[in-house]
Amino acid sequence: MGRPASAQGQKRPHPLEYIFHPRSVAIVGVSTDVRNPCTAEYYVEPLLKLGYKGKIYPVNQKGGEVLGLPVYASLKEAPGPIDHVISCIPAEQIPQLLDECREVGAKVLQLYTAGFAETGEPHGMKLQRQMVETAKHSNIRILGPNCMGLYCPRSGLSFSHKFPREPGPIGLISQSGSNSMYTVFQSMNRGLRFSKAISYGNASDINECDLLDYLTDDPETKVIAAYIEGTNDGPRFRQVLARAASTKPVVIYKGGYTEGGTRAATSHTGALSGVDAVWNGLLKQVGAIKVHTVEEMVDVLVALLYMKPPQGLNTCAAGNGGGASLLAADELERAGFKLPDIPPGIRDRLKTLIPPIGSMLRNPLDISPLMGRQQLHLVANRDVEDWRKGLEAMSFHKEDRGWGELFGIFDDWPGLDWVLLHISLDSNPGRVYDWFTATQAGPMLLGSRMCSKPAAMVLHYLANEHTWVCTQSARELTVEAGFPLFLSVRGAARAIRRLVDFNTAHPEVLRALREESTAQAEVP
Amino acid sequence: MGRPASAQGQKRPHPLEYIFHPRSVAIVGVSTDVRNPCTAEYYVEPLLKLGYKGKIYPVNQKGGEVLGLPVYASLKEAPGPIDHVISCIPAEQIPQLLDECREVGAKVLQLYTAGFAETGEPHGMKLQRQMVETAKHSNIRILGPNCMGLYCPRSGLSFSHKFPREPGPIGLISQSGSNSMYTVFQSMNRGLRFSKAISYGNASDINECDLLDYLTDDPETKVIAAYIEGTNDGPRFRQVLARAASTKPVVIYKGGYTEGGTRAATSHTGALSGVDAVWNGLLKQVGAIKVHTVEEMVDVLVALLYMKPPQGLNTCAAGNGGGASLLAADELERAGFKLPDIPPGIRDRLKTLIPPIGSMLRNPLDISPLMGRQQLHLVANRDVEDWRKGLEAMSFHKEDRGWGELFGIFDDWPGLDWVLLHISLDSNPGRVYDWFTATQAGPMLLGSRMCSKPAAMVLHYLANEHTWVCTQSARELTVEAGFPLFLSVRGAARAIRRLVDFNTAHPEVLRALREESTAQAEVP
Repeated sequence: MGRPASAQGQKRPHPLEYIFHPRSVAIVGVSTDVRNPCTAEYYVEPLLKLGYKGKIYPVNQKGGEVLGLPVYASLKEAPGPIDHVISCIPAEQIPQLLDECREVGAKVLQLYTAGFAETGEPHGMKLQRQMVETAKHSNIRILGPNCMGLYCPRSGLSFSHKFPREPGPIGLISQSGSNSMYTVFQSMNRGLRFSKAISYGNASDINECDLLDYLTDDPETKVIAAYIEGTNDGPRFRQVLARAASTKPVVIYKGGYTEGGTRAATSHTGALSGVDAVWNGLLKQVGAIKVHTVEEMVDVLVALLYMKPPQGLNTCAAGNGGGASLLAADELERAGFKLPDIPPGIRDRLKTLIPPIGSMLRNPLDISPLMGRQQLHLVANRDVEDWRKGLEAMSFHKEDRGWGELFGIFDDWPGLDWVLLHISLDSNPGRVYDWFTATQAGPMLLGSRMCSKPAAMVLHYLANEHTWVCTQSARELTVEAGFPLFLSVRGAARAIRRLVDFNTAHPEVLRALREESTAQAEVP
Repeated sequence: MGRPASAQGQKRPHPLEYIFHPRSVAIVGVSTDVRNPCTAEYYVEPLLKLGYKGKIYPVNQKGGEVLGLPVYASLKEAPGPIDHVISCIPAEQIPQLLDECREVGAKVLQLYTAGFAETGEPHGMKLQRQMVETAKHSNIRILGPNCMGLYCPRSGLSFSHKFPREPGPIGLISQSGSNSMYTVFQSMNRGLRFSKAISYGNASDINECDLLDYLTDDPETKVIAAYIEGTNDGPRFRQVLARAASTKPVVIYKGGYTEGGTRAATSHTGALSGVDAVWNGLLKQVGAIKVHTVEEMVDVLVALLYMKPPQGLNTCAAGNGGGASLLAADELERAGFKLPDIPPGIRDRLKTLIPPIGSMLRNPLDISPLMGRQQLHLVANRDVEDWRKGLEAMSFHKEDRGWGELFGIFDDWPGLDWVLLHISLDSNPGRVYDWFTATQAGPMLLGSRMCSKPAAMVLHYLANEHTWVCTQSARELTVEAGFPLFLSVRGAARAIRRLVDFNTAHPEVLRALREESTAQAEVP
């Protein structure tokens, strides 16, 4: 199956490495009905869009054509060797499909197909048991059933054509297909990219233990993220997780942590979900970070990958809007940060820089007048559409009467550990434009280079789709600058608090990550 | 100043009623520089857009024209009587403006102008004190300073041209301008409309007590919402709030509840913020609902105005996606709800309706296959663009093999108090379209009429602007159907829990609201 791209020197590749490098992918049961394009959209189109270099074999006994590719009546009719088979046919037909897989020498069968153990019905459980047994004898690994499969941008494998082509440092496993997708989609706005994402469903053969073990050894994965509903092998899970968490930061979203959720987990993927307290104890013991939603997971990943860990809990919030500034103060203190009073000498310097009218010269700082002035400087005397050129031409020194100086002041503020920058969008009575937000955010980001202390950016108060659209350039600028970007102060505060705690408890794990990955300081 | 529209029968209007019915509005200091259009955009354009029937007098000593209106050199040059004056000029010029206001007989001076007590500087505090004193002698009421002013759609008054023209039942007061705007913008997506919204800033004259007292008597206001940072008259505030909360539901977002937030509140509007525990005790005692963010406020308002109060804590979550269903279960249980097991008889009926494959026939229910089938029924054999016609033609009975029957089953489920419906959007690997979401939501909403139990709709897993755009029709359908709409399960669960508790503690207040307002059951 070719030499895996990630093999390093003499080291033997992990036993699962080959599943990410198939020479060909067959999609069995792909629909040829134009009114029901979903199987082709889910499994053929992504391979084309992400530039998969192997052969693609759509299979349907009706034959025909899908997205310009010939459809084969069966696996056996495909002209070349078949490594990876994706099943979109009903559960009842799987025994026969397995026979065909063996005949053509397939290595992996991934089942989008559902109707197995997760139904809770004896029939489905039996079907799953038999399938795994047959596959084992045929030396075929099973992924799923009831799962979306593999996303590996370096190989061009994907289960959504909307996923990005660029790879990144996050290795994600998810027992839920929908959460695997939502995590990637949420991440795309925030500059996060993936080495691999695996939706593994019922975990009938390849399970969370195998995949965690794989990601621990995968040199392309710097941070591990997992949505897990349960495990069927507690002792091995503990062992694998402990090794993973001592090697790389591990963030776990344990779905089904309440009584109702636990029952649902069993129903969803047939997993033994377990008591929340046991999970909490385990994750704490091994040093994994526990989160409760996809949004929280993405926030923590942003903090881990983009934020230099603050050395303490003293912060200053700086942004526009009095109400938004109070929110920032409240949310930061709720997360355990302190907003110290501004020392007199620092306040005097701020007073010479920021007009007192329309501002708040305390901590939190409402710096609306400075934001307005810097923005005007950027768009004055040129078309607003030219703001990108203006931003390129901007330079910052501590002596600038603007962001450069402000960040110089932050740098000189004794005891201040980090800075939270925020722009509240839908607190503006007038029109909001993409350039408007970008010209607020751009100078802030540039100015922050004058400061050796970590900083994070929050674009918040997003009430509707129009405002979302109008943050696109600001989001891109923030991410391109290698800056941690959040969409709520609460999300930022909680995630950065996790980062501080993780850095205190496991400095060596974070240090290893910093040495390898793209951190704030290294970006141009 | 004309007879206020809201005076009822013999009852004398509230002493503040007249401020919402000015015969004319003068905007002093409106910019005539096209590169700095904000004052006109904030204060002239809204009056034009919202159909203000009185006279509009832009004032700037340079003269000229703004948005097609002549600009007067001073208040005195305006051709007619002036009731309401908006100040956009620097604080230093306010004493002279007050003289002019007195000369022309203005009744209210609202100051967008900042630079007073909120600066914390002796000079600004003195300026504010003197202004209030002078105004008192001249029989002029001051709104602000450091505020956005009045939004009253029935009168055509507004401080944003983006605010809706249609009035509604919510009376909002906000010490923060940015929070007043964000609250209205957030509300617009969710079917919430306002009788009045008042951004009152430093509260130098007209303060939170006056405004709460006004909204308590205002027949157009059915629910009171307040963002408050502090009060300078604790005893009166307690008295006014108690009367308000015993008359109408009152939702309070107290900004600055942590140590850092309290300090910020003092800085922002010069208010005495006070200790959080004191506020908690007060709000609990009078029966006001406390929230911590604008988003939470909007969620609670949606629950109060659109949701029939559940009679207990037993709920069933039904939607698409396993991971999303687990999230729903976890969040509902975290908010104190219970997801009871499905009774055997009910489960048998569900099994005949929902195919077991790709579904979860427990509580939470993953009903993806039913959603797909009903959607197909709606768009089959017609252009998808025709889905609105299909939806109109749909009828539901308990005997339908679809949503009608599902809701009939919910109705028959003993001990079940309410139903949470959810559609997870960015859990879809393929393309998302506006019609796609609408044809998922539409049949759900229609079917829910077969059920006498309350239901709420959550459109969640919204990762980006494109998905937001693709929920527009579904959001509109939900709101038009008089249905409570939420954008996260956590938000829905917490707000509905507040509703249940409020209904238990203060049933008479909620009953009064139901008798007057548009509730779920009454909408066609």
